[in-house]
Amino acid sequence: MSIYTPDWVKHAIFYQIYPDSFARKVPSHQQWLLNVPLENWDALPTFQGYKGGNLWGVIDKLDYLQDLGINALYFNPIFQSASNHRYHTHDYYTIDPLLGGNEAFETVLKEAHKRNFKVILDGVFNHASRGFFFFNDILENGPNSPWLEWFKIIDWPLSAYDGNLAANYVSWIDYRALPQFNHDNPAVREYIMQVGEYWLRYGIDGWRLDVPDCIKTEGFWQEFRERVKAVNSEAYIVGEIAGDASQWLDGTQFDGVMNYPFAKATTTFIAGDRIVQKEVPSFYKPYPPIEEESYHLDKIDARQYAKDINDLLQRHPWEIELTQFNLLDSHDTPRLLSLAGGDRTTVKLATLLLFTFPGTPNIFYGDEIGLSGGYEPDCRRGFPSEDQWDQEVLQYHRQLISLRHTYKALRIGEYHTIYAQGQVYVFARILEDEVLIIAVNGDTNPQEVHVSMGDRGESVFQIKPDQLIYGDGKINWNDTGLTLSLPSRSGLMVAS
Amino acid sequence: MSIYTPDWVKHAIFYQIYPDSFARKVPSHQQWLLNVPLENWDALPTFQGYKGGNLWGVIDKLDYLQDLGINALYFNPIFQSASNHRYHTHDYYTIDPLLGGNEAFETVLKEAHKRNFKVILDGVFNHASRGFFFFNDILENGPNSPWLEWFKIIDWPLSAYDGNLAANYVSWIDYRALPQFNHDNPAVREYIMQVGEYWLRYGIDGWRLDVPDCIKTEGFWQEFRERVKAVNSEAYIVGEIAGDASQWLDGTQFDGVMNYPFAKATTTFIAGDRIVQKEVPSFYKPYPPIEEESYHLDKIDARQYAKDINDLLQRHPWEIELTQFNLLDSHDTPRLLSLAGGDRTTVKLATLLLFTFPGTPNIFYGDEIGLSGGYEPDCRRGFPSEDQWDQEVLQYHRQLISLRHTYKALRIGEYHTIYAQGQVYVFARILEDEVLIIAVNGDTNPQEVHVSMGDRGESVFQIKPDQLIYGDGKINWNDTGLTLSLPSRSGLMVAS
Repeated sequence: MSIYTPDWVKHAIFYQIYPDSFARKVPSHQQWLLNVPLENWDALPTFQGYKGGNLWGVIDKLDYLQDLGINALYFNPIFQSASNHRYHTHDYYTIDPLLGGNEAFETVLKEAHKRNFKVILDGVFNHASRGFFFFNDILENGPNSPWLEWFKIIDWPLSAYDGNLAANYVSWIDYRALPQFNHDNPAVREYIMQVGEYWLRYGIDGWRLDVPDCIKTEGFWQEFRERVKAVNSEAYIVGEIAGDASQWLDGTQFDGVMNYPFAKATTTFIAGDRIVQKEVPSFYKPYPPIEEESYHLDKIDARQYAKDINDLLQRHPWEIELTQFNLLDSHDTPRLLSLAGGDRTTVKLATLLLFTFPGTPNIFYGDEIGLSGGYEPDCRRGFPSEDQWDQEVLQYHRQLISLRHTYKALRIGEYHTIYAQGQVYVFARILEDEVLIIAVNGDTNPQEVHVSMGDRGESVFQIKPDQLIYGDGKINWNDTGLTLSLPSRSGLMVAS
Repeated sequence: MSIYTPDWVKHAIFYQIYPDSFARKVPSHQQWLLNVPLENWDALPTFQGYKGGNLWGVIDKLDYLQDLGINALYFNPIFQSASNHRYHTHDYYTIDPLLGGNEAFETVLKEAHKRNFKVILDGVFNHASRGFFFFNDILENGPNSPWLEWFKIIDWPLSAYDGNLAANYVSWIDYRALPQFNHDNPAVREYIMQVGEYWLRYGIDGWRLDVPDCIKTEGFWQEFRERVKAVNSEAYIVGEIAGDASQWLDGTQFDGVMNYPFAKATTTFIAGDRIVQKEVPSFYKPYPPIEEESYHLDKIDARQYAKDINDLLQRHPWEIELTQFNLLDSHDTPRLLSLAGGDRTTVKLATLLLFTFPGTPNIFYGDEIGLSGGYEPDCRRGFPSEDQWDQEVLQYHRQLISLRHTYKALRIGEYHTIYAQGQVYVFARILEDEVLIIAVNGDTNPQEVHVSMGDRGESVFQIKPDQLIYGDGKINWNDTGLTLSLPSRSGLMVAS
């Protein structure tokens, strides 16, 4: 079977919007958005409060994002949902009224497409919410509900809102706010497939799928891919799989997954001892979970990083690697800045590695202006006003985005690790006569390293790039290879 | 102010469909409707079970209804709702999936309009349900909800599903399944107005409004009328007001109300002692309620009937009287057949009075084929298969409907009571040279009555109708007036 993934994803730079916290604007004709009680925008986020960010606000930010070089948006859930993160879906066909409703989404989609942005939505198809109609009917009518088989009921009456009882129906991680669909019911399966198709027909460009590994029904994601791609063969399907995603990345299911293994390897290599252990996200920990206290996320050296990264790159077909969804953090992790104890250099070096890695890079809103925040919900702070931006962070984001757009090799070129010792990691991205070398020195001391070309190097480096296009340091070629002088904790990129 | 009501209503014959019990058909492409657990169609209805009637089934019945002479449909609620009666609205913009969803409604509306049927929907705007998004958000997020002001919360945490606690939020008749909107909130008001407009634009021909007297916000129904009529000036607005409706029938709010006073007067006159007291609906009882046991619905004679009916006809402007929504029973009362202890003649005579009364007659589904049923939910039985129909009942319905279509005087002619003594009631409907006389003898003995014309009669009866067009009996005119020979418990209609 030949594997095909959407070409545009390989060339995309994603920006992830957490709608409640990104931007807010109230149009005069949507009276229901006025005077609603909201959390203060600048106050620390809470689990139950809303900041009231909405899609009208997003529209106002599109010029900023376009200017930054973004060309794809990933929205955290926007369907009607009784939670600020909107993972508790109440209605799969309605955009949340606090976000401006279907009208606002129609407008944002049009405006985004006008700027040649792609737009993907977050599909939460493993579970719904207690207010979701088909579950609500069971809550209201008990064993008489026509929708009994849509969920897996264990006992009556349902304990959905009943004090401190455990859920007596199957729910996601036994969290009774999130009753889990019975995907083995053909009606449920069809319902979800139609939701998938509906929004594609509406005009979105793909789906990010929440906890898709929780759906065990055979052929489910294969059918989803077939039906979604039948509507739009260029639709992007990216799954949230934190661990080994091989079984979903065989070309019959997802085009990529949220690349937490990349984030973990990059973080442990670059942040090293700076990692604030209490902030380590569950995605980086072993599964099944071990006792919280006993876990320690250890730093790794360049050699280990090379191993981790190359293992990762060889795990899936190259066509898939080019559409992996790469990230450093997300709404489900602390911001890298906070995980690294506030070390701005960690973020800078990790961002260099993100934008030079095969697969599509994703910027979690605010990372580009130095927003900090610990584990959820703290990582979901209100996007700050410009006077609070870290302009240096914004500057290197602009630069890296621009370089990724300029150099096709960064997007679809081969990946070769060429040096990995101590805290120094050097690799090349090569596409025909476009050759780039990227180097990172994670050490607190300056490093000078010599990359001997040897047999393999000779073939890789027919062209010897020597123009510094990003970062600090010096590069020299001689007969035996390449010498790099790297300041302490720095990175650079050279091009041919 | 000149009062205007929609002309088509004056000429309409409504058929009221209780969707869960009227007809069921499952199209092959709506897989979710297959294999759902349902009550047996012929079993007595329950409060929590579903029979699974749907809009696809209604489409299959349109030819039958057209053939019967129906030209307007009133649907009990069809919006997504976790109850078989669907008065617990979960989503005002979605047709219930068990009914076939928006697709089925679009089709039924198209098919109905193709047959020149008008279609009105049931709008439940006083209260929503526990699953309704804006309430569900409060349930999920407590005092942090942005929608706090959409309802009137009394205490935390909400007792919505909490055992046997009373509702600690304002709800309809303290029924905590039905949280009442805070209509004083401009956002709520606007939300409801937009729902009203939306479905009019979608193509419906009017709204039946549930418990509109419970909404006390000043100007609410005036604004509703203005906005609805701005979309379609011929839209019909009929309120569910059981008692004196004068304050709503001033021409600035509703075009008519559900005419329970007509039903009560007609029932007590015709059924008389046959009324099964335990079945008497609350609408016929005094308000505020008196002790159940002590109330007795007494029979009335023709003189009292004349008084009640003429009081009723003079209570509102004539333009309104012509668009009152007349009925003998509904989803909220026992079937007249059952209220009258099974006396088929009561139904026959009352139906004659219904179809000859000013205002639009409404047939509660199944009344036309002799369906019986006591107080709710019993009055909502599954519409039976043809072998169980009472063909005589169907026959006189056909005949009365046909006569109402033939004689414009029955629809918009003047109404004159000309005789009311003992159990004999005689009246005329007159439109220019179209003159009809309708007589009912509710007595168990045959009656011969002489209607002396006198001064007023001379002017009324310039034309002296003498052709028997419906029922049994004889009519004779002489110089002094009119003599009617009426068999026991019978009715007739004569035309000029």
